[in-house]
Amino acid sequence: MQIVIIGSGNVATVLGGKLQEAGHRIVQVFSRRPEHAMRLANELQCGHVSKLANIYNAADLYIAALSDDALRTLGSQISLPGKLIVHTSGATPKEVLLKVSANSGVLYPLQSLRKELRPYPEIPILVDANLPEDLERIAVVARSISGQVQTADNDTRLKLHVAAVLVNNFTNHLYVLAEEYCRKEGADFNMLLPLIRETADRLSRIPPRDAQTGPAIRGDAATIKRHLELIGSYKDIKEVYTLITRQIQSER
Amino acid sequence: MQIVIIGSGNVATVLGGKLQEAGHRIVQVFSRRPEHAMRLANELQCGHVSKLANIYNAADLYIAALSDDALRTLGSQISLPGKLIVHTSGATPKEVLLKVSANSGVLYPLQSLRKELRPYPEIPILVDANLPEDLERIAVVARSISGQVQTADNDTRLKLHVAAVLVNNFTNHLYVLAEEYCRKEGADFNMLLPLIRETADRLSRIPPRDAQTGPAIRGDAATIKRHLELIGSYKDIKEVYTLITRQIQSER
Repeated sequence: MQIVIIGSGNVATVLGGKLQEAGHRIVQVFSRRPEHAMRLANELQCGHVSKLANIYNAADLYIAALSDDALRTLGSQISLPGKLIVHTSGATPKEVLLKVSANSGVLYPLQSLRKELRPYPEIPILVDANLPEDLERIAVVARSISGQVQTADNDTRLKLHVAAVLVNNFTNHLYVLAEEYCRKEGADFNMLLPLIRETADRLSRIPPRDAQTGPAIRGDAATIKRHLELIGSYKDIKEVYTLITRQIQSER
Repeated sequence: MQIVIIGSGNVATVLGGKLQEAGHRIVQVFSRRPEHAMRLANELQCGHVSKLANIYNAADLYIAALSDDALRTLGSQISLPGKLIVHTSGATPKEVLLKVSANSGVLYPLQSLRKELRPYPEIPILVDANLPEDLERIAVVARSISGQVQTADNDTRLKLHVAAVLVNNFTNHLYVLAEEYCRKEGADFNMLLPLIRETADRLSRIPPRDAQTGPAIRGDAATIKRHLELIGSYKDIKEVYTLITRQIQSER
């Protein structure tokens, strides 16, 4: 397939690379900032433009890997009638690109993508389309780069996006709190990496509710008290500790 | 080394198995509940007792893998003068076993251990001793089953225990919330497993603060609003979402 990538950030870069590996031809990259367009075009060995007016208009697929805000204004800046175009956003309705093309839809990678990290992680993909006949065309592209492809409507996609925020952004915030705490207190955060990996890995073997351990689920009031004394001056940690300990205890 | 294991739970089972694999001889298992002692003795092919008075008194090392409460009362129930004994608790001072033996200390596996899960995960170990001359003896045992062994005093061990609660118990709680939300809303939680693994794995490559993504760090108020509407009836998720989103935003 001949593909134009609109965008040059993490999602554009990783999807571009994965699609090329799968045998598709990336023909052009667009970014409003010429140096960004050039960087990704260099990496993918393809053309690049920095004006929407100059976009190649005979590709098979256009992938708009843009911020949610930029997606909302794309329809007033470019029209690609008859062309298949997808966006890659978890939180944006599939209808957002209808003014660009009736043949529009979604190819949402349910993964946290960073252009500099290799190897690429596994990327589950949620697909959707405004016209039923486009759904399978989009799914075929998705399946060429992912073993986990599901159709999901706006609502289901947004729900998985919320869940992704919980397990990725919020989990990462706990890592931030723990890393800063260890650094300030002279403890070695790296000693926690095997525990972090185990916590994630075991989910494929047992449900999270069965995996819970620690002072909160045991009702170990003495340890919780010692912990709270120790973290007294860390306001963010104390708030998180108090709230989540209470919630875990109410699960018992 | 000849080792007696006092306890029969997850830590006792995994440490017993690892030590045996490393060439040590587990000579006896103690549990107050005979059927538990027997189960682990069967697994380790060794003797078992359910009365502390019957514990073999000529082993090289005693490992008290007990709850924090049980550790606090062990000194009034058994005395092993001249014998080396360690406990495996993150939150309990090294002095807790002094009445059992002056030669007491700590061998704390900084990992979430479950007896039924194979292969065993990597297990970083923190060691400490009441007498300086015992420290290296304990460290040698620890190094026979772990490539990551550090000496840590009571305070440092408790700090890493707090950090472990953040990255394991609290992270697992986020998985619980996400899994229950997906189940109740008909979304497929398994689609999130690659994201969960990637979030954990990337910590060995970039610091968590640099890895943060999502609507909170981007300041994407529209998406946050949509998320909050969507999770309106999930009180626990809403509390966590509100608190952690605010904390991530204050990091920007």
